[in-house]
Amino acid sequence: MAALRSFRFSPGPGLSTAVVVGEGALGHLARELPRIAPGKWFVVSSQPVFFLHGERFLREAAAAELDPTPVLVPDGERAKTWQVLGHVLAELIARGLRRDGGIVALGGGTVGDVGGLAAALALRGVPVVQVPTTLLAASDSALGGKTAVDLPAGKNMVGTLHHPRLVVVDPALLRTLPDRDFRSGLTEVVKSAMLDAAFLRRMPALLSPLKERRHPAVAEAVFRSLRMKGRVVASDPEERKGLRFALNFGHTVGHALEQASGHRLSHGEAVAWGLLAALVLSERRGGLDPLLSERLFGWVVSLSEPPSLSRMRIAAWPEFLKADKKGDRRGLRAVVLTGPGKTATIRCEAEEAGEAFREARRRYNTARDG
Amino acid sequence: MAALRSFRFSPGPGLSTAVVVGEGALGHLARELPRIAPGKWFVVSSQPVFFLHGERFLREAAAAELDPTPVLVPDGERAKTWQVLGHVLAELIARGLRRDGGIVALGGGTVGDVGGLAAALALRGVPVVQVPTTLLAASDSALGGKTAVDLPAGKNMVGTLHHPRLVVVDPALLRTLPDRDFRSGLTEVVKSAMLDAAFLRRMPALLSPLKERRHPAVAEAVFRSLRMKGRVVASDPEERKGLRFALNFGHTVGHALEQASGHRLSHGEAVAWGLLAALVLSERRGGLDPLLSERLFGWVVSLSEPPSLSRMRIAAWPEFLKADKKGDRRGLRAVVLTGPGKTATIRCEAEEAGEAFREARRRYNTARDG
Repeated sequence: MAALRSFRFSPGPGLSTAVVVGEGALGHLARELPRIAPGKWFVVSSQPVFFLHGERFLREAAAAELDPTPVLVPDGERAKTWQVLGHVLAELIARGLRRDGGIVALGGGTVGDVGGLAAALALRGVPVVQVPTTLLAASDSALGGKTAVDLPAGKNMVGTLHHPRLVVVDPALLRTLPDRDFRSGLTEVVKSAMLDAAFLRRMPALLSPLKERRHPAVAEAVFRSLRMKGRVVASDPEERKGLRFALNFGHTVGHALEQASGHRLSHGEAVAWGLLAALVLSERRGGLDPLLSERLFGWVVSLSEPPSLSRMRIAAWPEFLKADKKGDRRGLRAVVLTGPGKTATIRCEAEEAGEAFREARRRYNTARDG
Repeated sequence: MAALRSFRFSPGPGLSTAVVVGEGALGHLARELPRIAPGKWFVVSSQPVFFLHGERFLREAAAAELDPTPVLVPDGERAKTWQVLGHVLAELIARGLRRDGGIVALGGGTVGDVGGLAAALALRGVPVVQVPTTLLAASDSALGGKTAVDLPAGKNMVGTLHHPRLVVVDPALLRTLPDRDFRSGLTEVVKSAMLDAAFLRRMPALLSPLKERRHPAVAEAVFRSLRMKGRVVASDPEERKGLRFALNFGHTVGHALEQASGHRLSHGEAVAWGLLAALVLSERRGGLDPLLSERLFGWVVSLSEPPSLSRMRIAAWPEFLKADKKGDRRGLRAVVLTGPGKTATIRCEAEEAGEAFREARRRYNTARDG
């Protein structure tokens, strides 16, 4: 068994998040729960995830003399609604959650969002532990405390910051992930590498084993992604200083595309296209070296394999760009890369972001056709 | 025009709450809003409150070149549901709330709770300004950041801490308050006085003018109540050290009675009975001087005029006591008064709290019959 890698950071005054990554991390988790909260534990998960991993989770919990109560939500984005969140909260309270209890969110990003938000709101807040089962959640969303559900008017319109006390990534849980979802997760991994010069230097050695889903490489990439994000979050826990905003690299165009495609593009696919557009914008507005940009462009295409958009109807996506919640009356805010691991926040018009996206499409098509 | 009284405190690292009390405070409010958030403002209010005070509020806002968008909720506790909160959030987003905007909660405790929670959750948090229109909210709930809605399983089961940037109390808004609601508010005032020795010494001079609803006395009592609470909240913003827990004096029995009565007892009436029971418990478990206790007992009866419970069916209220969310596996936690402005937190069984309540009823009946 490979050793567990771990680190700890403070996402705010009086707060602490521990991160543990590696084979066997699930056993570690079970032993930690009673230290985090002595009372009754719940596990919020989705039906398919709990079918795959619930038994193992409960077995590890039983070995630590715990008997968490499952509360299951529908699969995928359907779980991220106001109604489902209300049901989860009613279940938690009806089945005996107290202030000395806690919640494990076992699943992908949506389960982490809904479970985290339920933990933030139930009894005005109980501890949450994130146990991601997708690469996307494991390398990004499980850490940082952002929780949300969607409204008809847009994604993630309702939520709060509720930092997990513990994030546990056991690569064994990622084994069952479909290839498309795994590639989606690699999008956040390659974004993380762009924001961390040391990780970026390590990437050439990780490219092949990541594409082949080899465990040591996956665990290392997840660990490096979370450590980078932990550092950024610790420096700006509530996104007040703009430092944390850098994590949105590629997400302005990405989110708008995801919505405009009616979610036929997965989050990771949309963000992959967002990264390609953001690299073009970074050359134009951030002075990013075109040679570095081209190399990173190639990594995104190779790892994320974003689908060609030629057959996809993208409905009025500049409208979604303008509705981006990162914007304000003065227009969009977007992140550009200025060098390895270095970013700047710029203001730009939706038209400029759209033009960068069109240029990214041209380069993508040229590379593919050439 | 009487001078405005004001103070400012920090309810947590990087946070600041300003409090302004007095005739004309509404004009002050309008000038402050653009400093708090430069974007679009909303005013969450209830239909009857907005009918009474909306025009005046919008006029003051217009004088500061603001045009807040009203979002109205049903009157009273009916507003504190998951469904209503969902509608408020959908309205805020659909009508153009952005991250540079803010929300004024204009109304009583339920509007403050729903408006505050909506502000906490919309776009992961926008500033909220509390403008209470009941004495209960003005002297207590508008400050401190607690927000909540109810679930079928119990009151305030869902919520979060979201501190207001500004609390504005204009006694002119309290003029239209029915007497029963005003007396309810006096319950929190007398509770606040018990927790602050200087306020307690001042109370004999305030008793008559408060009963007569004279403005200078009301403004002073509100100001002293909020200042006391501000000090406690600043010392323990997230209720981690137990200091803030002292504010629950009278509320353990109070909440249980309120629920057991099927809300035929108002919050203030139920807490008035809770205070009477808590005074008995304070003599028995906190060593409170029986002479002081008797005097405070008399003030609660005189100011709050809690209704005789002889004709009221109180259903299984010890069950509600046991379900109190301040409790845990080891039983109830309750606050006792040990002297003027001095408290302690004790553990007690539901039976002991019930017996203190029965003794309070005996004393109440003796005083009334004698």
